[in-house]
Amino acid sequence: MASDYSATPITMDNINPKVLKCEYAVRGEIVSIAQTLQQNLKDNPGSHPFDEILYCNIGNPQSLAQQPVTFFREVLALCDHPSILDKSETQGLFSADAIERAFQILEQIPGRATGAYSHSQGIKGLRDTIASGMEARDGFPADPNDLFLTDGASPAVHMMMQLLIRSENDGILCPIPQYPLYSASIALHGGTLVPYYLDEQTGWGLEISELEHQLKTAKSKGIDVRALVVINPGNPTGQVLGEANQREIVEFCKKEGLVLLADEVYQENVYVPDKKFHSFKKISRSMGYGETDISLVSFQSVSKGFYGECGKRGGYMEVTGFSPAVREQIYKLASVNLCSNISGQILASLIMSPPKVGDESYESFSAEKEAILSSLARRAKTLEEALNSLEGVTCNRAEGAMYLFPCINLPDKAIKAAEEAKTAPDTFYAKHLLNATGIVVVPGSGFRQVPGTWHFRCTILPQEEKIPAIVSRLTEFHKKFMNEFRG
Amino acid sequence: MASDYSATPITMDNINPKVLKCEYAVRGEIVSIAQTLQQNLKDNPGSHPFDEILYCNIGNPQSLAQQPVTFFREVLALCDHPSILDKSETQGLFSADAIERAFQILEQIPGRATGAYSHSQGIKGLRDTIASGMEARDGFPADPNDLFLTDGASPAVHMMMQLLIRSENDGILCPIPQYPLYSASIALHGGTLVPYYLDEQTGWGLEISELEHQLKTAKSKGIDVRALVVINPGNPTGQVLGEANQREIVEFCKKEGLVLLADEVYQENVYVPDKKFHSFKKISRSMGYGETDISLVSFQSVSKGFYGECGKRGGYMEVTGFSPAVREQIYKLASVNLCSNISGQILASLIMSPPKVGDESYESFSAEKEAILSSLARRAKTLEEALNSLEGVTCNRAEGAMYLFPCINLPDKAIKAAEEAKTAPDTFYAKHLLNATGIVVVPGSGFRQVPGTWHFRCTILPQEEKIPAIVSRLTEFHKKFMNEFRG
Repeated sequence: MASDYSATPITMDNINPKVLKCEYAVRGEIVSIAQTLQQNLKDNPGSHPFDEILYCNIGNPQSLAQQPVTFFREVLALCDHPSILDKSETQGLFSADAIERAFQILEQIPGRATGAYSHSQGIKGLRDTIASGMEARDGFPADPNDLFLTDGASPAVHMMMQLLIRSENDGILCPIPQYPLYSASIALHGGTLVPYYLDEQTGWGLEISELEHQLKTAKSKGIDVRALVVINPGNPTGQVLGEANQREIVEFCKKEGLVLLADEVYQENVYVPDKKFHSFKKISRSMGYGETDISLVSFQSVSKGFYGECGKRGGYMEVTGFSPAVREQIYKLASVNLCSNISGQILASLIMSPPKVGDESYESFSAEKEAILSSLARRAKTLEEALNSLEGVTCNRAEGAMYLFPCINLPDKAIKAAEEAKTAPDTFYAKHLLNATGIVVVPGSGFRQVPGTWHFRCTILPQEEKIPAIVSRLTEFHKKFMNEFRG
Repeated sequence: MASDYSATPITMDNINPKVLKCEYAVRGEIVSIAQTLQQNLKDNPGSHPFDEILYCNIGNPQSLAQQPVTFFREVLALCDHPSILDKSETQGLFSADAIERAFQILEQIPGRATGAYSHSQGIKGLRDTIASGMEARDGFPADPNDLFLTDGASPAVHMMMQLLIRSENDGILCPIPQYPLYSASIALHGGTLVPYYLDEQTGWGLEISELEHQLKTAKSKGIDVRALVVINPGNPTGQVLGEANQREIVEFCKKEGLVLLADEVYQENVYVPDKKFHSFKKISRSMGYGETDISLVSFQSVSKGFYGECGKRGGYMEVTGFSPAVREQIYKLASVNLCSNISGQILASLIMSPPKVGDESYESFSAEKEAILSSLARRAKTLEEALNSLEGVTCNRAEGAMYLFPCINLPDKAIKAAEEAKTAPDTFYAKHLLNATGIVVVPGSGFRQVPGTWHFRCTILPQEEKIPAIVSRLTEFHKKFMNEFRG
């Protein structure tokens, strides 16, 4: 029986409607059902036709048994409890370069105070390290004063939306399909998402003609389009942009006076030999565009890559091409929340300055990295092939990131059944999949898609030894589903 | 020479005006000047009449050499690098109960994955621990499902403002003086701050008649007042509310249909024997008000107390008296940012379940705690007496929290000089103080104050051995300042 809250003041009718409008499917209804099923399995083993829930809904590698990178965790532990650094037992427990790195990092923190609020943009010494790492990656200078360290990339995205969006007349160009952080943040800040469609036929191609068309359409409706979001490598789509395409995108932003918001959190997740990650900063600078020519924000996170340290909530944005006065406003936004967590800050510096040849940890670190990335590449390929072998399913390859986003050609009868169940056809499919197999995916409608097409997002993260079972369960389910709903 | 950003699209004229309106003085102009002076001292020792900058602007204990609590850091380090838990050397480096606690915590984390995103409200087992700690504190039940773990308390405050504020017609009653997070958050979410003045004459008393008066005035202007913010112990004012006063406040919120937003982050910082902290939850429940009678949110943080772990960004809110449907919306807001950092979550559970009698760490833990709290009490008293001995300065005692907020009766000539310098008189005073002594305080105008009165906020956090020098520098400066500007 529901309790009676009629004596309390806050109701669904009087909360902020922007909150109501916001959606975040990655942790939505399907996940709630999965959590209930998981509890069922715990309370009543054998109560379902599967013995575990496989969370393929979210890019959360360590929840699926990926182990943390040893060197990173050694340094974090030592920075958390620096008083053991001088003890002899410590040398037996930790690698020499981790101990040395912890000492270096403590030197960079004013007063060695890992428990103090830092500078609102993050500890200066750590930003220096990150900037050096970016310079080594790009071959162009990076300024530590351009870096804002944040608790994961999400708060950085919110900060930029807060800065740019004044009203619903302000628009942000976003890819469709998109990572729902963008639609959620735009909704919360009261702006308008201006969609541009990635072309599924050409491997989720990003066509400038489509950008131009959508910009023109938005302008004709009185929308002031302020920024272009590009996710590269793509989420949920997994494509890696080509260099020539990136140059066109930079040119488009320059010409149209748009801020380029580059989500580059999957920069270390590229699985195919014919593609390579290039930061938009590198592309812009190589085109001759400098600090005052183009406004560019790049987002990075410790949650992705081969390290997958989602729980540490480390990340940052590099902000270039904004006047000092506007930069002051971004600094003010950062300072209202004081600073991001110091462990996350330290980890953000570590991913941009991993062990080098000659360091004690170098070989074990490189082996861990290579094992994770090569396994992810194999899993991506196996799952892609399995999906493409299903009736009515087509799936572009995951060139990068952590996801596959197959298109399902659903039978009319399934679409009608979904309508009757008052749910989207892809949600209908995902629920059936979950109930039959324990596999959790996110319906494509959570990411938006070309109207009338249906997809789901599935991570490539389950442990490699479980992939064959997943493939057979998925295949079996899909056959049954299609047989049940075929015309 | 400033660079020319005229080719970039974002200017001070076209950013979100809510961002422009937001102010956060705790990290504002005075702190920027202090950072410049600090750099000067480093580059040119002896260039100023002091040899270090004393940051009394912010409640950041570890930045002023307060050491972290050993037990907490032991557990955090072990959870960061669990693979050393079984090693024999570990027993020589860590206390037995820290090792045991780390094992317990890992058991509470699904898959022992400290690097995974958790449940959006925080790891369930850690919320269970926190809820037990609250029950022990209050003598009333606490539900782990009511807890939302956040990166410090600030994001929790933002979340509630985001939920409650629909437009500038929505008002939030806030104490004046207030902690500027509230004014900043209300400005960013586009609401109206409805001030109620604390009575300096009665030790920053919170009068119900003042609440009634201000509510009525706001209503007459068409403001829909939605919530009352109470900071207890007070920031920047340091008062601890009496139990009878808290009951009146609860009754007022109940009668007027307001959400009670209780900032209780200084709950462990009470320094006077005649006052005690009572949570508003305990007060409400002891009055017979249950879950469906009153809407109450309590904020807590790992940054304050005796631990002062600001850099860990741990915190939470307890949300009671909201319907399941509204709670779902709060959950959705939490889920957009996935989860708070796991180290901060672990620390939040530790502060609510410290070592107990019989545990190996109990005595050393208790000694560390007692040393910090008793020293803070002594520092508060010494600084309060010193301030009260200054000409034209009156200062209420710091019963709790980490601040003193003295009133300065500035000479007319100083006020005129400030006007000429186009700055507020208390900012004028604070700048002179900084330039003469290196002491950084925050002008009262950053917290708001009764018009025509002038204050500053000064933390009680400098190391105890430095307090005498601070007192003499402050006293000497104040005499000179008053002599210079006396009529």
